[in-house]
Amino acid sequence: MKGILNVFHGEAIDVAASLDRITAEPVTALLSSPFFHSSAMDGYAIRFDATFGASETTPVRLRIPDDALYLNTGEPIPDGFNAVIMIEDVNVIKDAAAGREDIEIIKAAAPYQHIRVIGEDIVATELILPENHKIRAIDIGAALAGGHTHINVRKRPSVAVIPTGSEIVAPGVPLTKGRIIDSNSAMIAGLINGYGSSAACYPIVKDNLDEIKCVVSEAVKSHDLVLIIAGSSAGSRDYTSTVIRDLGQCILHGVNIKPGRPLILGMIDGSAVAGIPGYPVSAYITVDLFIKPLIHKWLGLSSEQPETITAVIGRTISSAIGQEEFIRVKVGKVGDRFVATPLGRGAGIMMSLVRADAMLTIPAMSEGVGAASEVNVRLMRPKSDILDTIVCIGSHDNTLDVLYNFLKRKYPRYSLSSAHVGSMGGIIAIKKHEAHIAGTHLLDEKTGLYNIPFIEKYLPDERVMLVNLVYRQQGFIVRQGNPKNITTIDDLQRADIIFINRQLGTGTRLLTDKCLRDLGISGRTIKGYDTIEYTHMAVASAVASGRADTGMGILTAAIALGLDFVPVAKERYDFVLTRDSYAIPMVEALFDIIRNDEEFRLTTLRMGGYDVSDMGKVMYST
Amino acid sequence: MKGILNVFHGEAIDVAASLDRITAEPVTALLSSPFFHSSAMDGYAIRFDATFGASETTPVRLRIPDDALYLNTGEPIPDGFNAVIMIEDVNVIKDAAAGREDIEIIKAAAPYQHIRVIGEDIVATELILPENHKIRAIDIGAALAGGHTHINVRKRPSVAVIPTGSEIVAPGVPLTKGRIIDSNSAMIAGLINGYGSSAACYPIVKDNLDEIKCVVSEAVKSHDLVLIIAGSSAGSRDYTSTVIRDLGQCILHGVNIKPGRPLILGMIDGSAVAGIPGYPVSAYITVDLFIKPLIHKWLGLSSEQPETITAVIGRTISSAIGQEEFIRVKVGKVGDRFVATPLGRGAGIMMSLVRADAMLTIPAMSEGVGAASEVNVRLMRPKSDILDTIVCIGSHDNTLDVLYNFLKRKYPRYSLSSAHVGSMGGIIAIKKHEAHIAGTHLLDEKTGLYNIPFIEKYLPDERVMLVNLVYRQQGFIVRQGNPKNITTIDDLQRADIIFINRQLGTGTRLLTDKCLRDLGISGRTIKGYDTIEYTHMAVASAVASGRADTGMGILTAAIALGLDFVPVAKERYDFVLTRDSYAIPMVEALFDIIRNDEEFRLTTLRMGGYDVSDMGKVMYST
Repeated sequence: MKGILNVFHGEAIDVAASLDRITAEPVTALLSSPFFHSSAMDGYAIRFDATFGASETTPVRLRIPDDALYLNTGEPIPDGFNAVIMIEDVNVIKDAAAGREDIEIIKAAAPYQHIRVIGEDIVATELILPENHKIRAIDIGAALAGGHTHINVRKRPSVAVIPTGSEIVAPGVPLTKGRIIDSNSAMIAGLINGYGSSAACYPIVKDNLDEIKCVVSEAVKSHDLVLIIAGSSAGSRDYTSTVIRDLGQCILHGVNIKPGRPLILGMIDGSAVAGIPGYPVSAYITVDLFIKPLIHKWLGLSSEQPETITAVIGRTISSAIGQEEFIRVKVGKVGDRFVATPLGRGAGIMMSLVRADAMLTIPAMSEGVGAASEVNVRLMRPKSDILDTIVCIGSHDNTLDVLYNFLKRKYPRYSLSSAHVGSMGGIIAIKKHEAHIAGTHLLDEKTGLYNIPFIEKYLPDERVMLVNLVYRQQGFIVRQGNPKNITTIDDLQRADIIFINRQLGTGTRLLTDKCLRDLGISGRTIKGYDTIEYTHMAVASAVASGRADTGMGILTAAIALGLDFVPVAKERYDFVLTRDSYAIPMVEALFDIIRNDEEFRLTTLRMGGYDVSDMGKVMYST
Repeated sequence: MKGILNVFHGEAIDVAASLDRITAEPVTALLSSPFFHSSAMDGYAIRFDATFGASETTPVRLRIPDDALYLNTGEPIPDGFNAVIMIEDVNVIKDAAAGREDIEIIKAAAPYQHIRVIGEDIVATELILPENHKIRAIDIGAALAGGHTHINVRKRPSVAVIPTGSEIVAPGVPLTKGRIIDSNSAMIAGLINGYGSSAACYPIVKDNLDEIKCVVSEAVKSHDLVLIIAGSSAGSRDYTSTVIRDLGQCILHGVNIKPGRPLILGMIDGSAVAGIPGYPVSAYITVDLFIKPLIHKWLGLSSEQPETITAVIGRTISSAIGQEEFIRVKVGKVGDRFVATPLGRGAGIMMSLVRADAMLTIPAMSEGVGAASEVNVRLMRPKSDILDTIVCIGSHDNTLDVLYNFLKRKYPRYSLSSAHVGSMGGIIAIKKHEAHIAGTHLLDEKTGLYNIPFIEKYLPDERVMLVNLVYRQQGFIVRQGNPKNITTIDDLQRADIIFINRQLGTGTRLLTDKCLRDLGISGRTIKGYDTIEYTHMAVASAVASGRADTGMGILTAAIALGLDFVPVAKERYDFVLTRDSYAIPMVEALFDIIRNDEEFRLTTLRMGGYDVSDMGKVMYST
């Protein structure tokens, strides 16, 4: 165990190839730089003591080349000379008869004036870089100027990444039911390489104790660290702990974190070995929490101090006592506060990491955090990126992805971050200043108006803008060919129909409930009425996969997954935002896309199910 | 001109190899992930409608395998089944006679309970990554899980780096007077590669118009950008602008910045070409200011928003009107303020960039900034590194480099940043809370005491500690063998002796002046008395290079450069610091090295000229 936390030895490499490597010993100057006295000006090298007493009335004449020599800037001072007179301070006198030139000067020179002296930048033996320093481009220049051609840097830890699992297939192998693409190996290799070590990905090993043992015992011979992916739980086909125990020793099995509990750490023949949980979020978090510090220790790097910020959490997050939980959150700056919105918490929701701006840690002894409380979150993106992100909370629509992409295309600096909490959630987010903009499509039954009555009711104290994005078609998403022949709301009550619903507070749920109420139908009579999804695409996916026969959603979602559709209503989808948000440059950029980008308009139309005739039009303002 | 600012086209590459590349188009999911319904628990797949009415009193029995099937977590739900009952909620009943097993359940199941459904992570067609996005490890995982094996990323701009200059030699070529190591090519290549493009370094080209033309006209054929290093001024051997003008067009020659004025931008046959100034600091700054945004534009990246902080500037910086000047500064946090200390300003002082923490911009129409004014500086290192840096301002000693290295070795997180302003400057820096610690060796002539009388006089209101670092030998540094036979102070007045002095306020200058005063000698009678250097090593270098015959300095500096030495006095070199600073963890770490690191003690002794008997001892405190 003792040696495993020691810093690694160095290896000499070409200075020019040392970017981002870590110095294994101090780099001191072998030579002084500059290496010789040189002229700092265009002018004449002279001897300063030959200029004593020079003045306007008593100019001193110096003969070329014996007493004065012309030099360009940067040229070495010839032996015996010890000052430079600038060309503009010299009067050149040609004596054509004698075939020679003199210079005349009218001011005495100081010793070594206008000379760039040896060691002005660095004197031999002085320190250029300390050890444990990550080499930057400028350090490469300085090390070369200091006379080094090679530099002693820490050997890169070599890491073997071994995916296991009989159900796992390599990317590109056609998927069938029960098969899972190995996305972990390349993701982990990316992390490992980013830490400054070098990852080698192994072929997938089946769930077979002997096969895994064979591969691992080979891998430890040539790697400092071996990561065995999956099989680290205690299931009947989880062999990792047995492999480590049989070949070496297991130091730890299981950590009190979520996601990431089934982590294993051990040693085999002097190499470190870890069993990394197979769920991608668990894999990411355990590698980040446990493997990165080990590699940094080997490299002589300090463990990073990740930037943290204080943010207001939008909604209550409860967490089980007894486990430290890592919640991925989106963060945006709205007004003068940072606002954090939790993302999906499942260990398999990789997109929660793709979309995350920060990580919120709920301590083991906490039951969670209440809505509107202030929390410290660890940033996963630069703060400047977060400041440049438009926070959009509200109703889901498929154009939001497209809009995000067009924003990023035309204004690479800006991002659009969407959270789907339904139209009412969006209006409340605007009220609580937790979002810059909200998508909403709420029909007021009394007036037949969209959105405006809700703004008047819920945002009476705000000066807001309501801007149309699209009109869209809502209806029942059904499988191709409508095999169960669903044509009316009444059909939802049929014994052979499983429905999939949306969450409360969404415009789509309101529409469903209005249709049912109009016909006097109770939700309790509909199978699946209590099963909810959070986006139109999730509803479409439930229908496509056979999990449900139908659900209310937009035509665009049905088209995207090749499904059929029974129209119910055309509705208006608007953005609501305060006038303050409307004036922020990044929001202006967003409306530039919405109003002026012809290709965005065409792309929206090509998705199907949209009417863009009012796109970007201000429908209402207060 | 028009096309030169267009974003680059994409190229398809292996997803696994795409770390840090930039997406050239949106990445949407080709497959839903998960791809099939799977069990989220260990348990039995069942049909939910077969469980209606199950309760403790009316358990429902299901036959294996017709009505219930055991599944491990992650296994696919077999066709026809639509819910999972957890193993702990099941009572297994063996009917050995009939050779079969049943399960008994006491609670009805909801549709799709404990099933991880298709598309839970991402639904086919949904956006995984927008275009113009820099790919991270997690993005690689998500793209693979979304069914991609290849990904369309922006082609890396290819950049040719062409060093020019007849005086330039490749690293490793033995240096002679007049020759300069090409440190620019590798430094610039490092910068260029760090921006996400790919640099190719060319061999050095002599100052010959035709040769340079020939190389450049070849290079533009295969590169998007060609950088010609040096020769961009208007001197007689500066060919870059002629080359660009003859082969294509020159768009700009000269920018109003310092350092970096002689920049050239142009176009040849559709490729961008730049003439980069040859002084390393000018090269670095012009590449950072002008080349980086161009490459980022091509890649579809936003220009970065560098972090800025507000810092108090320690001393007045004057700057010529009419040029925007970039001043490299060291930054530290002392108390609750950031303090900035300007570094060497010459365009050839590469170490000013190595040591810089931030860049201060003096606008063209400003004459500079006054001492104690607040300025905004652009950080060049992470803020967390700056918070972990001990600011040491005061007297120079060779052990400071060694101490820095030992600190970084044992505590990689911490740094020591030294500025050499002399002992008095150090005490004033402590008084003004501009430094954590100061090195000082001030002899009070009246009492014969070191440092304490000065602390009592200048720091009466501070609670301070005075801790010894070393005793050291001061004397006259002379060339090997003492060729001019310098043995006493009197010798300094000799006509054949050129002296090199230290700046006012240094302990060494005080010592020199005391020695002269004791003998009634005036500085005016000494040649070179007004020429000053800022460190012992610079004085030693002046002697070694023949610029001066002698100067007062420490024995260690003489030993380092292989010089001889005439002893004058043994003196005490202490650190002075406030009790507040003394209690900061990073300062505690520094004193841990000073007091407990045997190898630091031995390394100091091995340098020669030091007595370490009181190293780390508290000499005085208030």
